[in-house]
Amino acid sequence: MDMSEQEFKEELASRVEAAEHIVKQHLAKAADMQVPATITEAMNYSVLAGGKRLRPVLLLEMFRLFGGEGTGAEYFAAAIEMIHTYSLVHDDLPAMDNDMYRRGKKTTWAVYGDALGVLAGDALLNFAFETAAAAFAVCKTQEEYARTAQALQVLARNAGIDGMIGGQVADIEAEENAGQLGEDALLYIHTHKTGALIRAAMLCGAILAGVTDREQLAKIERAAMDIGVAFQIQDDILDVTGDSQELGKPVGSDAVNGKTTYVTLKGVEESAREVARLSDEAIRIVKGFPGEHRFMEALIAWLIDRRF
Amino acid sequence: MDMSEQEFKEELASRVEAAEHIVKQHLAKAADMQVPATITEAMNYSVLAGGKRLRPVLLLEMFRLFGGEGTGAEYFAAAIEMIHTYSLVHDDLPAMDNDMYRRGKKTTWAVYGDALGVLAGDALLNFAFETAAAAFAVCKTQEEYARTAQALQVLARNAGIDGMIGGQVADIEAEENAGQLGEDALLYIHTHKTGALIRAAMLCGAILAGVTDREQLAKIERAAMDIGVAFQIQDDILDVTGDSQELGKPVGSDAVNGKTTYVTLKGVEESAREVARLSDEAIRIVKGFPGEHRFMEALIAWLIDRRF
Repeated sequence: MDMSEQEFKEELASRVEAAEHIVKQHLAKAADMQVPATITEAMNYSVLAGGKRLRPVLLLEMFRLFGGEGTGAEYFAAAIEMIHTYSLVHDDLPAMDNDMYRRGKKTTWAVYGDALGVLAGDALLNFAFETAAAAFAVCKTQEEYARTAQALQVLARNAGIDGMIGGQVADIEAEENAGQLGEDALLYIHTHKTGALIRAAMLCGAILAGVTDREQLAKIERAAMDIGVAFQIQDDILDVTGDSQELGKPVGSDAVNGKTTYVTLKGVEESAREVARLSDEAIRIVKGFPGEHRFMEALIAWLIDRRF
Repeated sequence: MDMSEQEFKEELASRVEAAEHIVKQHLAKAADMQVPATITEAMNYSVLAGGKRLRPVLLLEMFRLFGGEGTGAEYFAAAIEMIHTYSLVHDDLPAMDNDMYRRGKKTTWAVYGDALGVLAGDALLNFAFETAAAAFAVCKTQEEYARTAQALQVLARNAGIDGMIGGQVADIEAEENAGQLGEDALLYIHTHKTGALIRAAMLCGAILAGVTDREQLAKIERAAMDIGVAFQIQDDILDVTGDSQELGKPVGSDAVNGKTTYVTLKGVEESAREVARLSDEAIRIVKGFPGEHRFMEALIAWLIDRRF
């Protein structure tokens, strides 16, 4: 039986709270060090500015679904949220999108200056790997070391040039020749800029839980990509059909900026069909996962079919 | 018997060449990926712009001195040079030191724009951890996994807020209140901004070679800190007494910028005595290392007593 919206919202709230607690717990280790207070302040400001905590929630839920035990996944949950945050901190820099506000709050560089904006992002990326590497401290067997090492490689690869950074670069190059963008280029940006960290979250959770079967890992990757792309296309649709009140951000900005989106390429109807196709595939894959996966199914449906 | 200058210069040249080969080899793996060409171009431009390759040379030499076998250290040698390079790429940004030239070449942002300058640095830092994490692929025993995990933690810690980034932040804060700087604050900057990666290089080399004895690791750390601080003080001295022709950079810039240095605090004579004391201590520690350490002794003497 599916979850009721009420049931899901309560479950989601408790998962987000748990994930946030873990992130804060690991971030606090930075403040405990003998380091300049400004940098830990800027790191905390950036991470605690809010957010859906989607990546750590996904990572921890995959770990749970596949029967993971122990605290190993917590290090990676904290690390992936730090990586997500560093990418926002650097995206907001004057050298990049030059945004002074995010979620109604001043961006990191707007508060601490752009030198600290660069360094706070660097510090978060570095501390993310420091945090993930600390997971080896709870490894007892060689198999646990191997799992942790594999998760670390998956995290680094998806955060890097073959993942999120590759997507950011392609996005910048696309903006420089707006309108020229084809479907393949757009898909590359979607699967890398947003999709890569969702893939890393789902794969790391499963790998740390002990999943080694290549076919199973390929299915997880497939579901993650479906979610990431559907999420982005839905964003493009909402920019055309959405209510700026509900969204909490202006609509129609893509059209104004002459930005190529899935909607400008395919139209709203076909875009909506593609979102439905992708989310159906992702949910079908999740139904094949072990454990109690009603929350994961509801999470995917909510992520994609969200009005906000 | 000590090495002759001629002997040392030839040995150093071959070590630098070997280190550079390893860095290029691992960097080439980035270009092999299906990623936007611009980012791998910018990464290559940044790393291949030159440099003494001091950190990988130190790491590989420590690995050799302590009887390390296999290729594990090569991953870390490449990683630490990528981390050093990313820090230069971000230091040169308009948001930071705003330098258009380094070693007579245009800086990364000056060639690729400041958005790519931010992303190329991010990419190098991320790829450094991706490269170091790839060292687990050559681990066979649980002990090898544990060594590699420890080296990874040492690398991340020294590159981060409790290491190089902490030093960069303290340096920026110091510039904001020039002249106000005390000896402790100056020492913090020296030991972190420069010292931390030298410490990481020497410790990682030894750890990967199998050194576990805490006392031995503490001695290595001591020697690394002596080298890092002596190197910096010598820089300060050369800025006053050096020949801009030999140095290949203008002298007297610290005084012009009203920068607090060891020399402005202690004077040239006491600074020179401190450099001698630190280098003597470092060399005395190195004489206690196993293996043939004449090159390491000569390297320390050259690093500190350099005219250029």
